[in-house]
Amino acid sequence: MADLILTTFDWVPETPRGFVRDLRVRWALEEAGWSYRVESVPFRARDAEHFSHQPFGQVPWLTDGDISIFESGAILLHLAERSDVLMPDDPRARSEVIEWLFAALNSVEMASLPWSLYRFTGDTEETPGREMLDKFLDTRLQHLEAVLAGREWLAGAFSVADILMADVLRLVERFDGLANYPACRGYVARATVRPSFVKAHSDQMAHFAAAD
Amino acid sequence: MADLILTTFDWVPETPRGFVRDLRVRWALEEAGWSYRVESVPFRARDAEHFSHQPFGQVPWLTDGDISIFESGAILLHLAERSDVLMPDDPRARSEVIEWLFAALNSVEMASLPWSLYRFTGDTEETPGREMLDKFLDTRLQHLEAVLAGREWLAGAFSVADILMADVLRLVERFDGLANYPACRGYVARATVRPSFVKAHSDQMAHFAAAD
Repeated sequence: MADLILTTFDWVPETPRGFVRDLRVRWALEEAGWSYRVESVPFRARDAEHFSHQPFGQVPWLTDGDISIFESGAILLHLAERSDVLMPDDPRARSEVIEWLFAALNSVEMASLPWSLYRFTGDTEETPGREMLDKFLDTRLQHLEAVLAGREWLAGAFSVADILMADVLRLVERFDGLANYPACRGYVARATVRPSFVKAHSDQMAHFAAAD
Repeated sequence: MADLILTTFDWVPETPRGFVRDLRVRWALEEAGWSYRVESVPFRARDAEHFSHQPFGQVPWLTDGDISIFESGAILLHLAERSDVLMPDDPRARSEVIEWLFAALNSVEMASLPWSLYRFTGDTEETPGREMLDKFLDTRLQHLEAVLAGREWLAGAFSVADILMADVLRLVERFDGLANYPACRGYVARATVRPSFVKAHSDQMAHFAAAD
């Protein structure tokens, strides 16, 4: 691989530490065994250069030679296309990994992130809209539970799809949202004991702690 | 292309008609100029066969020869890899389409779908959680507005990324959420006058109407 540079914030508040999305990229890079450099952009003052790489003012982005990529899903797919540790070559197996990669982001995280944002605010009021969102997540988790009860990883061997899905579920677990889903909890536990996750997580924590 | 079969529900209630996600696939197939067949599964009784194709009990899925794919994002990427009308071959341009394809789903729809679910319920109560979700969508749309003010399509020529982003924004517009975002509205208007969208939309409406 060419020179890989992962860009993240220089600092974030305590709460999101361990959950900033550069973790997904670090994790994938560790699994693939590729070296990379980490660069930082200011969390507080996001300039035009930042928006030219990440139009929503978020992180991370990855530069791979002359290509700069934002969106953790796009970055992981880019890496996976270059590593059979992250995604197999066989067309059918590859297609399975890709559908689960999208499912993590668009079927599960689309329900779980709003749910988590609610918990971040400490809002406890029961309104029809909120009940709808709670039910949205519960339904998705019920179906995912049925899938994970029968398999170790989403698409055969461990893949980028598992990096995304496990990272999405970690944030639900943080707010106790997996209490009724033992197969989901077991899956998160299996994923997060992997040495690549442990290293990625501890590197992220150290990166933000260094800026305190 | 081999025999392409798009599976959707046999029927849905009035409200989601015109917005069921098979529309994204129809639209892409029309743009690519590929013929396909549409098959139906019951909306009311979702059986094990359904879940074997779509583990969340949703639609659509696409079968392409012996490969069955769920998740509209994964389906559109699968088609785009086979058509330079949907995505260019050049690595850099391809990467740009893919990052915007993910941005549509994971940066914009992740904020807009919860917002729309709220409106579906008719809930008008202002709670801290709800304000957080409203702000989440507004911030994303402000950044997207800045992008769309300067370009016709997201990644150079029209691509699958525009099919997803325009379809995501259509649902926001339905609930008047683009009132402050003229560039987003103009973009949706540009996308939805395309003959392929018009045909896809009218085919979906006819499909569900036939089951009434």
